Amino acid sequence: MSLITVGTMAFDAIETPFGKVDKIIGGSATYVAYAASNFIKPVQQISIIGNDFPENEINELKKRGVQMDGVEMVQDKKSFFWSGRYHLDMNSRDTLVTDLNVLEDFNPVVPDSYQGSEFLMLGNVMPKLQLSVINQLKKRPKLIVMDTMNFWMDVALDDLKEVIAKVDVLLVNDSEARQLSGEFSLVKAARKILSMGPSYLIIKKGEHGALLFHKNHVFFAPALPLEDVFDPTGAGDTFAGGFIGHLAKTKDISFDNMKTAIIVGSALASFCVEKFGPDRMKEITSKDIEERISEFVQLVNFDIDLV
Amino acid sequence: MSLITVGTMAFDAIETPFGKVDKIIGGSATYVAYAASNFIKPVQQISIIGNDFPENEINELKKRGVQMDGVEMVQDKKSFFWSGRYHLDMNSRDTLVTDLNVLEDFNPVVPDSYQGSEFLMLGNVMPKLQLSVINQLKKRPKLIVMDTMNFWMDVALDDLKEVIAKVDVLLVNDSEARQLSGEFSLVKAARKILSMGPSYLIIKKGEHGALLFHKNHVFFAPALPLEDVFDPTGAGDTFAGGFIGHLAKTKDISFDNMKTAIIVGSALASFCVEKFGPDRMKEITSKDIEERISEFVQLVNFDIDLV
Repeated sequence: MSLITVGTMAFDAIETPFGKVDKIIGGSATYVAYAASNFIKPVQQISIIGNDFPENEINELKKRGVQMDGVEMVQDKKSFFWSGRYHLDMNSRDTLVTDLNVLEDFNPVVPDSYQGSEFLMLGNVMPKLQLSVINQLKKRPKLIVMDTMNFWMDVALDDLKEVIAKVDVLLVNDSEARQLSGEFSLVKAARKILSMGPSYLIIKKGEHGALLFHKNHVFFAPALPLEDVFDPTGAGDTFAGGFIGHLAKTKDISFDNMKTAIIVGSALASFCVEKFGPDRMKEITSKDIEERISEFVQLVNFDIDLV
Repeated sequence: MSLITVGTMAFDAIETPFGKVDKIIGGSATYVAYAASNFIKPVQQISIIGNDFPENEINELKKRGVQMDGVEMVQDKKSFFWSGRYHLDMNSRDTLVTDLNVLEDFNPVVPDSYQGSEFLMLGNVMPKLQLSVINQLKKRPKLIVMDTMNFWMDVALDDLKEVIAKVDVLLVNDSEARQLSGEFSLVKAARKILSMGPSYLIIKKGEHGALLFHKNHVFFAPALPLEDVFDPTGAGDTFAGGFIGHLAKTKDISFDNMKTAIIVGSALASFCVEKFGPDRMKEITSKDIEERISEFVQLVNFDIDLV
């Protein structure tokens, strides 16, 4: 059993009300890999990096069972760089700088060694690139999960819809669900989006948790109320990595197991925000994860004996 | 077993993105009474109305076991009137008109027939009035639940803190919890507020659910994702009425039963928003309530077999 992840590996500069870092490892594929590798090996990475991406960071990921055959290294360019500043509520942020650098040349190639993988996580990149990866796979994976963002709805909606029609699970946040569907009610939005192709829709609401829609079913997972949210960067990708990592580990893609996978993803994301960048993800053990998941059980557990 | 509720009985004019009504019955005590009377009789109302409050509305409440001995009727004045317009997100609203009318004279008197009641719901009125009701009770109720709002934090903070120190459960929304505590993190805010006196704190987050804090425990109840939120007016009071109504019915004020009570309150509130004013609350049956509570169980129920 293996998992292919497609996305960025990058540098971020982050400013939150609690501090700032000038240059820290980031990118959607990095966070997905850190989260998913707690559950499944190998994680088969597809990405692109420049000459400045630190070797020790690559080695750190390799030690966790992340394969780099699909990561292109461009010798004469720098890695993708993003810089942003979070508002006090941590749910909104301003992008200060976006230096595409190597990302301008990203043309993902699926190595032969990745063929036959049963799980595919399409991180948030240009829809045409997501589609290219799907088309390169000789056998359709058992489960394709796709993340995206409002930017692609603005500039590449037709491409985006073409990819959405081919995936099993779509991940968006609440405002993206509203934009994509044209519906304000998330229940109506979900119905419209499910009619575009995917069997499952996950609407992420940040500190307000996440909703999973499937046919006429809906499941809600809360976010853990935390003392401090230090840095939300990568929380969505970490959630996605935990989600698909649990599914790949258990090889069970039923609705019931997706509910558990959402709790696992939420637990992983709750660690991610405790430190800058992926720092916290490098520390946590499987015991930490189990304990955190127990906190989620406590958080929502109630008796329904209403007599 | 009986329940005293203190609050307003009023007229509202409401504008939402889905429609408007010029004059409909409202007020915190009205909504609490409609919700709580599904579970407990009598509901002993303390309020004040003008000469314009419709007799058929009074009779409707009486039929549900709501006692009116504590409701003062002022012959030469009109009832309290509030008018507001909701924004598209339904979580925020502008107040257009506030005509205090009889509310200027509100000086709640606890009738002898209400003495000995074991549950007290202090709806959102001036803190001095809430305090006066507590002081008039010859025997302290088994449970005092208090609602309030940011307005009293601005203009009567010392009085408010005096009442808060005397109650068991405080209900506020997230921005009020932040204002009252001076903490942005809701976990830190809860700790500070619990140190002010109450054993339990409920932080209402509207469509994002509600959190219950007690000592080091926290419980989260989601709001039901709805096709349409038609009119959120009274949802918070309906939640409070369902919450204390369930506790009064079961006579069990343990943390575990409070969790169930929050689910019951959330279920009641999810009906309230389906029509303008308390219209939907007049229709629902105990079968409707049971079915809605089952939907909440489905919504958050997951298997945590992580092997």
